Amino acid sequence: MRLLGARFLRFTTRSMSMSSINASIVRLGLCQMSVTADKARNIAVAAEHVASACEQGSDLVMLPEIWNGPYASTAFPEYAEAVPGVGEAGSIDADASPSSYMLTQTAKKHKVWLIGGSVSERAEDGKIYNTCLVVNSEGEVVGKHRKVHLFDIDVRKPKKMFFKESDTLSAGDTWTLVDTPWGKLGVGICYDIRFPDMAMVLRQEGARFLVYPAAFNTVTGPAHWELLARGRAVDNQVFVALCSPARVTAEEGNNGYVAYGHSTVVDPWGEVTLDMGTGAGVQVVDCNIDRIDEVRASVPYWTQKRADMYTVMRTDRA
Amino acid sequence: MRLLGARFLRFTTRSMSMSSINASIVRLGLCQMSVTADKARNIAVAAEHVASACEQGSDLVMLPEIWNGPYASTAFPEYAEAVPGVGEAGSIDADASPSSYMLTQTAKKHKVWLIGGSVSERAEDGKIYNTCLVVNSEGEVVGKHRKVHLFDIDVRKPKKMFFKESDTLSAGDTWTLVDTPWGKLGVGICYDIRFPDMAMVLRQEGARFLVYPAAFNTVTGPAHWELLARGRAVDNQVFVALCSPARVTAEEGNNGYVAYGHSTVVDPWGEVTLDMGTGAGVQVVDCNIDRIDEVRASVPYWTQKRADMYTVMRTDRA
Repeated sequence: MRLLGARFLRFTTRSMSMSSINASIVRLGLCQMSVTADKARNIAVAAEHVASACEQGSDLVMLPEIWNGPYASTAFPEYAEAVPGVGEAGSIDADASPSSYMLTQTAKKHKVWLIGGSVSERAEDGKIYNTCLVVNSEGEVVGKHRKVHLFDIDVRKPKKMFFKESDTLSAGDTWTLVDTPWGKLGVGICYDIRFPDMAMVLRQEGARFLVYPAAFNTVTGPAHWELLARGRAVDNQVFVALCSPARVTAEEGNNGYVAYGHSTVVDPWGEVTLDMGTGAGVQVVDCNIDRIDEVRASVPYWTQKRADMYTVMRTDRA
Repeated sequence: MRLLGARFLRFTTRSMSMSSINASIVRLGLCQMSVTADKARNIAVAAEHVASACEQGSDLVMLPEIWNGPYASTAFPEYAEAVPGVGEAGSIDADASPSSYMLTQTAKKHKVWLIGGSVSERAEDGKIYNTCLVVNSEGEVVGKHRKVHLFDIDVRKPKKMFFKESDTLSAGDTWTLVDTPWGKLGVGICYDIRFPDMAMVLRQEGARFLVYPAAFNTVTGPAHWELLARGRAVDNQVFVALCSPARVTAEEGNNGYVAYGHSTVVDPWGEVTLDMGTGAGVQVVDCNIDRIDEVRASVPYWTQKRADMYTVMRTDRA
């Protein structure tokens, strides 16, 4: 009912959202925002981007990784804030958790689902995490993912790229799979996409979408960004969405880390249905969720796996 | 010693094979042969292609999937022959096993390692398998892989493509990982590449190369061939080689199944170092095996896996 309500509101104002009344289509909006050192500005821009995506008829809107401050190990503690857990939206303190507060208020205002990118979270135990909230169209926190695989790399070729998230961040240790009106949505953050096993567990547990707020760079981006997005989509026969910050040059801030951009959506057949290039902006794309079962039936390798030879399994439950 | 011998022979006759004396380079030759309904002709052409690859300095030569007859369910039993097991090369009967006999004799003659593509095998129990032999430079059978995942698909979009190998073939149930002078080589056949879990087990057990004799078609080829090759390479930080028959039109034979061609080699960073297009021929490419450890050190996700959350494991041993 709430979804129909949301659609009706939009429908009365704009004929272009008519496609949204088809229950097998989810209109996904990606916010490839430019991120600066000004946290208040970043929060305001994120809210504007979400509003813009909603004006374009989005059912589900996604923000990038670390959208409220620079992507830098030294900045993570500085920009960290409290982040509520699932079901805790009612108690969010706007001063202590300005980013999460904006997300829940904005979702409620526009009656839209949000994959809230990620921000650095200061947990009660003092640890800092790279954390993504999923918020439903009533403004309730329905998913919270702490990046499971920290981005510690030291590339020499073809160009140098060093980063060590573990200098200031801790890694999460839980799975995030959210029930949505369009099917289960599995969440990872950026480097998590490098782990096929993680994606396969999410698929085994029912994921029909895998979403990764992410900030690759100009070394790993050209080499692997689209490959990994398409690979996870085809191997798991799911929609995959990656949302990146816009490309900002080193001179413009962000402590020398230049995000790749190229926010991308891939369908379960591996077709790239959206590639946003490098600039800042908002774009929407319709995902036909019937395509998931169609692809799974046509090349049914998930029913052809050889359980007698190998398996991918969770080890975190008895 | 035998390798040095092989290299010395080539070195004395052709200066272009000088690169072969660098132990960190393996020169890989791919034989993208056209396959017809004439088995004797196919065997002769395969031998010629291997000879040509050796003239170009190959250390390791690869043939495509089902190279001795048409890729068709009805043809598999017709073209099937006995295929020796590991260590049985000495007892190969040239009449009962003409394809395997040629492979072992040709490897020995040219002192070259062979990944012998695949042929349909009639086993002692009467079952038919899609089987790949690996033969060392002394002509010994050192690996035998029976396709583990049969190609049963029914694609409707973007174009129709139906195939059901299980109509006449049985599936293998063993792993094939071969020690070579350049590191461990894991073997799959065609559709096996669709299974990331299989590739990950091979990597866990030490594979530095994954090789797939394969025959994609003009529907799945454009969509997934290069993606899967690059995906397995990057996810496992290995060299990947796919060797296909040349593209032959339906009119030219092969019972309507048109192979994609595009035999491909990908390095552990995901770079395509060889793509042979659609025509028949032999091409070689040098693989710098130092690149494997370099890539594994630079983006070390295989040491960053979360064994506390998930694992990929073999289920076929206690």
